[in-house]
Amino acid sequence: MAERAVEEGATITLSNTPIAVRMGETDALAQKLGCEVIPADATSVEDLQQVFSRSMELLGGKIDFVLHSIGMSPNVRKKRTYDDLDYDFLNKTLDISAVSFHKMMQVAKKMDAIAEKGSVLALSYVAAQRTFFGYNDMADAKSLLESIARSFGYIYGREKGVRVNTISQSPTMTTAGLGVKGMDKLFDFANRMSPLGNADAAECADYCILMFSDLTRKVTMQNLYHDGGFSSVGMSLRAMATYEKGLDEYKDEQGEIIYG
Amino acid sequence: MAERAVEEGATITLSNTPIAVRMGETDALAQKLGCEVIPADATSVEDLQQVFSRSMELLGGKIDFVLHSIGMSPNVRKKRTYDDLDYDFLNKTLDISAVSFHKMMQVAKKMDAIAEKGSVLALSYVAAQRTFFGYNDMADAKSLLESIARSFGYIYGREKGVRVNTISQSPTMTTAGLGVKGMDKLFDFANRMSPLGNADAAECADYCILMFSDLTRKVTMQNLYHDGGFSSVGMSLRAMATYEKGLDEYKDEQGEIIYG
Amino acid sequence: MAERAVEEGATITLSNTPIAVRMGETDALAQKLGCEVIPADATSVEDLQQVFSRSMELLGGKIDFVLHSIGMSPNVRKKRTYDDLDYDFLNKTLDISAVSFHKMMQVAKKMDAIAEKGSVLALSYVAAQRTFFGYNDMADAKSLLESIARSFGYIYGREKGVRVNTISQSPTMTTAGLGVKGMDKLFDFANRMSPLGNADAAECADYCILMFSDLTRKVTMQNLYHDGGFSSVGMSLRAMATYEKGLDEYKDEQGEIIYG
Amino acid sequence: MAERAVEEGATITLSNTPIAVRMGETDALAQKLGCEVIPADATSVEDLQQVFSRSMELLGGKIDFVLHSIGMSPNVRKKRTYDDLDYDFLNKTLDISAVSFHKMMQVAKKMDAIAEKGSVLALSYVAAQRTFFGYNDMADAKSLLESIARSFGYIYGREKGVRVNTISQSPTMTTAGLGVKGMDKLFDFANRMSPLGNADAAECADYCILMFSDLTRKVTMQNLYHDGGFSSVGMSLRAMATYEKGLDEYKDEQGEIIYG
Repeated sequence: MAERAVEEGATITLSNTPIAVRMGETDALAQKLGCEVIPADATSVEDLQQVFSRSMELLGGKIDFVLHSIGMSPNVRKKRTYDDLDYDFLNKTLDISAVSFHKMMQVAKKMDAIAEKGSVLALSYVAAQRTFFGYNDMADAKSLLESIARSFGYIYGREKGVRVNTISQSPTMTTAGLGVKGMDKLFDFANRMSPLGNADAAECADYCILMFSDLTRKVTMQNLYHDGGFSSVGMSLRAMATYEKGLDEYKDEQGEIIYG
Repeated sequence: MAERAVEEGATITLSNTPIAVRMGETDALAQKLGCEVIPADATSVEDLQQVFSRSMELLGGKIDFVLHSIGMSPNVRKKRTYDDLDYDFLNKTLDISAVSFHKMMQVAKKMDAIAEKGSVLALSYVAAQRTFFGYNDMADAKSLLESIARSFGYIYGREKGVRVNTISQSPTMTTAGLGVKGMDKLFDFANRMSPLGNADAAECADYCILMFSDLTRKVTMQNLYHDGGFSSVGMSLRAMATYEKGLDEYKDEQGEIIYG
Repeated sequence: MAERAVEEGATITLSNTPIAVRMGETDALAQKLGCEVIPADATSVEDLQQVFSRSMELLGGKIDFVLHSIGMSPNVRKKRTYDDLDYDFLNKTLDISAVSFHKMMQVAKKMDAIAEKGSVLALSYVAAQRTFFGYNDMADAKSLLESIARSFGYIYGREKGVRVNTISQSPTMTTAGLGVKGMDKLFDFANRMSPLGNADAAECADYCILMFSDLTRKVTMQNLYHDGGFSSVGMSLRAMATYEKGLDEYKDEQGEIIYG
Repeated sequence: MAERAVEEGATITLSNTPIAVRMGETDALAQKLGCEVIPADATSVEDLQQVFSRSMELLGGKIDFVLHSIGMSPNVRKKRTYDDLDYDFLNKTLDISAVSFHKMMQVAKKMDAIAEKGSVLALSYVAAQRTFFGYNDMADAKSLLESIARSFGYIYGREKGVRVNTISQSPTMTTAGLGVKGMDKLFDFANRMSPLGNADAAECADYCILMFSDLTRKVTMQNLYHDGGFSSVGMSLRAMATYEKGLDEYKDEQGEIIYG
């Protein structure tokens, strides 16, 4: 997304957690794009203030668009199932993956850091609407994230003309995506269910660009599916063909299923 | 449903198409329940008037509840795929499966045949929201049906306190259900996706009874999923286990897929 | 929309009903844009075939995008309320406003008239989801239209990579819009409810352009709200302020309300 | 709801916060119903364990149904607007109003306290889907609550046949409801928008009873609107009539609006 924005002529800043920044990948990207990385913990109001003040300094004024692409569940990482959640972990999941979006916007609004008619985006997933086994408490975080987009979009829209939306993206083979249990099979299932196949990261970047352009100035408080049609398919022929093959030989061994 | 209503103490009338009535099954049911069958073509305003006037005569007054359980697609029957629809057939699909619901209510309201705070139900399917291959133009008919429930529910509610809802039922092994292509596999898929398994016809009758009772007087213009949870599941472990088995051996032979 | 597409470098054709074409406005637009008008009744398969064959001739090949912007209800025109519909009129409403979208796509697909990865759009309204008094049977037509977008989008996507979406637009002061009862007040209400205000026709054209661009190739079977946020607002402060003023003096005169 | 359950023959226990219990009202109710109050902080896993173990003791076995009717926002109480939230308060809002629902179910499942095919309900509000000014961070809490119902419903359903749903109730004149800014006007607006008028607390109790009965055993992971039709209405004639009156005299004084 960062590459795509720069390609379109944008001047940008990047941010990531201090630890991720130390790992080097974000810096490599920044160097490639000629932009600065501002390390920040997205759950820290102070860090977020720093991100916006430094960005305004670097960009020479108010910011036109912001992308929130943050999500992490310690429960998923530690393989706690959804009926055995650790509540400190859940609190972290929600804080990192959803409340950080509110903090980001509240900080920006208080600093008046986003230009009139600016655009704010966050990345979501259809698990906010329907349960996917293994997606665990991230589903709840995404529901909360989308609600925050609506709630803050109402206020930011009326007062500053700033629009706030979420993009509900196909399962994508990112670092975060790979942490989800059975991700490769879910990826295949989604791909065969979607008439256009899964949307990939580059296509997601294209779509984000549009949502940041002046041509979407009246779109706000929406959750926009960018998923090759997955969200509107109940069962496709291609997915059913695979399913049927399994049906031939599948023996349902009662009691051996672990729900996650 | 008819049996269940009588069991709960209701006095009812039945209706079916003249041809179906001649086949005898409806009569057998009527005899068992001690009620009368009023043959009617649900697309005929005159026939519907007859259904309501005869029913009021038999029941000795206004009607407390009505169930619309009608659906048929000549395109499905004649195996026309969705990209090769016959438009006279489509017209019939919509008229029989959806517009008949409007006709039924408009006739009833003009005759003032439904008691104040009465309840009107129609049966729908989740294909109204998501595409299921093979469900064809019945999906469009169900969308139209649910819209009619909302539109008429608004008017009938305000003027007479009559509520109008649809129940979106699991795939059910009925005569109509069996006409849908690959129904048995869809049935299995839905069953494994739904945490409570598919809802069957007897359970549907139970739910309808509740929607006809005085305890649901403020529920209107709703589409109520009665599906063991299917509509809120994106992927279950049990369905995925079957899918995975198929994945092992499935070869996607490009170009041989027929979309239906 | 036509002007905007040409501005972006597209070569286009226009179509409208023969009678509307004779009125002259479409011709004036065509002259301005240097394109041809192909008169057609959108409910006629033959006319639609002519639209596509002539368009391919003029454009020198397959078509990249198509906009369906058609809606008309004889029941609304003749002031038939929703509980007093004329069923021939309803049939026309559905045929003109929704089934024509299927016909358009079925014709195009059979003629293989739309290029791979092409984009098809239709214009809708939030009345497809929620009842607005006075919108009458157009609500049902829009529900049907959106269902057709999903159903056909599934098939067209998988076979040709063609995406099919609907844009659910703010109430817009067009010729069609002005036919709806109390439109000016609904327009004001929607405007005050929407944090960004209503989206106008020029902004709608911008959004359509994006949906026709290569940057939205994985968006399909979606209904996209382009409404300043209206669809996600339950009650805004600005609308409530107006409502409150009315509350002070409003006397609900029982029995005088006409439901439409 | 408690009264209604006892009326139907249920044996129950009540719970409320220790401070609320000391105020006496819960005790008065318990005395009237001949049941015991178990004081508990719903955010405390230990307290919830106590609620379930004491309840099983008193009821002589596993529990058939549980109602979660808990919500509180310190941000609303302290009149913090949504763009000036205190994050400790937000954390409390989410913990009390939503995460407590997860805790309740996780505790119950670990203790195997709910009988097979039992029923679990929580009360929600349409602000989970659409923004209502003044509802503030409670909207986000309700979104989270409904997501938890789906996520846990999937697991509890498959393993124990326990269903989990939320009821999205009309604005109701309860202690909690009265804390919301402009509640009386929202109540009036909802009432005029809903064809059947707002559902009241007694009607809500009726609906809950049904969701606890054996006749709804296949309904799960659903959010059920119990609102007289409000959720499916975009604009009603009655609400518009009031709005119009206000329109005559309303002057939009730019800049004086406080967004909440």
